Amino acid sequence: MSTHTLSVLVENKPGVLAHVAGLFSRRAFNISSLAVGPTEDPKVSRMTIVVDGASTPVEQVAKQLEKLVRVLKVVELDDRAAVERELALIKVRIDPALRGELLEVATVFNTKVVDMSPETVILEATSSPGKLDSLLENLDRYGTCELVRTGRIAMSRGSGTITDHIGAPLAEAV
Amino acid sequence: MSTHTLSVLVENKPGVLAHVAGLFSRRAFNISSLAVGPTEDPKVSRMTIVVDGASTPVEQVAKQLEKLVRVLKVVELDDRAAVERELALIKVRIDPALRGELLEVATVFNTKVVDMSPETVILEATSSPGKLDSLLENLDRYGTCELVRTGRIAMSRGSGTITDHIGAPLAEAV
Repeated sequence: MSTHTLSVLVENKPGVLAHVAGLFSRRAFNISSLAVGPTEDPKVSRMTIVVDGASTPVEQVAKQLEKLVRVLKVVELDDRAAVERELALIKVRIDPALRGELLEVATVFNTKVVDMSPETVILEATSSPGKLDSLLENLDRYGTCELVRTGRIAMSRGSGTITDHIGAPLAEAV
Repeated sequence: MSTHTLSVLVENKPGVLAHVAGLFSRRAFNISSLAVGPTEDPKVSRMTIVVDGASTPVEQVAKQLEKLVRVLKVVELDDRAAVERELALIKVRIDPALRGELLEVATVFNTKVVDMSPETVILEATSSPGKLDSLLENLDRYGTCELVRTGRIAMSRGSGTITDHIGAPLAEAV
């Protein structure tokens, strides 16, 4: 599935998320994942929104987002020029006889065991989106019983930052 | 700041996020962070919402969320009985003379260097919420120029899962 990653700087005020989510909802554009948290500036929050490129006209969405009050900046990040990462916690129900094998898979994928009970293990995995999907496929045959994912976040490589062009039109900012 | 972490299972359909965000907005409850992504069941998404406990009556919020159509389950996760993690990408503008020192801090906090330019470094940090704040404080004096965070995700320790009690009232589910 071809996806697009939008980084959106917004004012850190109640109601901003509702405006953004409302725009997607009214246009019936589906959000694959969304993560929002604080930035280096306490007045500003940053959302990373992943949309399915096939069903969503991403340039149009970006332009409509930029028109919302309290939205400061919208940038589409190109996966070739950006670092993209996602965090997941994965609880696996595991037959004790297979635990050694599971821990080998966990090591190959650079995950950390952060909890263990007689029947279950919780793995913490931080990786690029494709690699996380591959890990989840590998874990499927052991028995993933609970999964929580942050959704993707992304940042452009090199020395430029998203705030370099605050106020510039989208085309220049990308 | 005392925070509360809500795990919310919702149907994976357009408009659900707008309903949830709208509820917080109408009541003027501020969301500290929100992360939403897919689960092990393709029909279900999972949101992790962190709210400020001082300003938000969290039990009331949880009950109102449960009444929304397409919300399947709401659980408040207790930080003593749950694994809580957050992922951040942090771009630091660094004087080459201080780079060695910065990389020592990065190592102490178990971060990974995922990009480097002559003037900047991007660190990937996955940690508990308190430890991430401490890392960011330490990096402040070098010059954090860009920060993107996923917001917190959480999962109960041990063998129980959030779906064990689908449909049960909140009080029993916690």
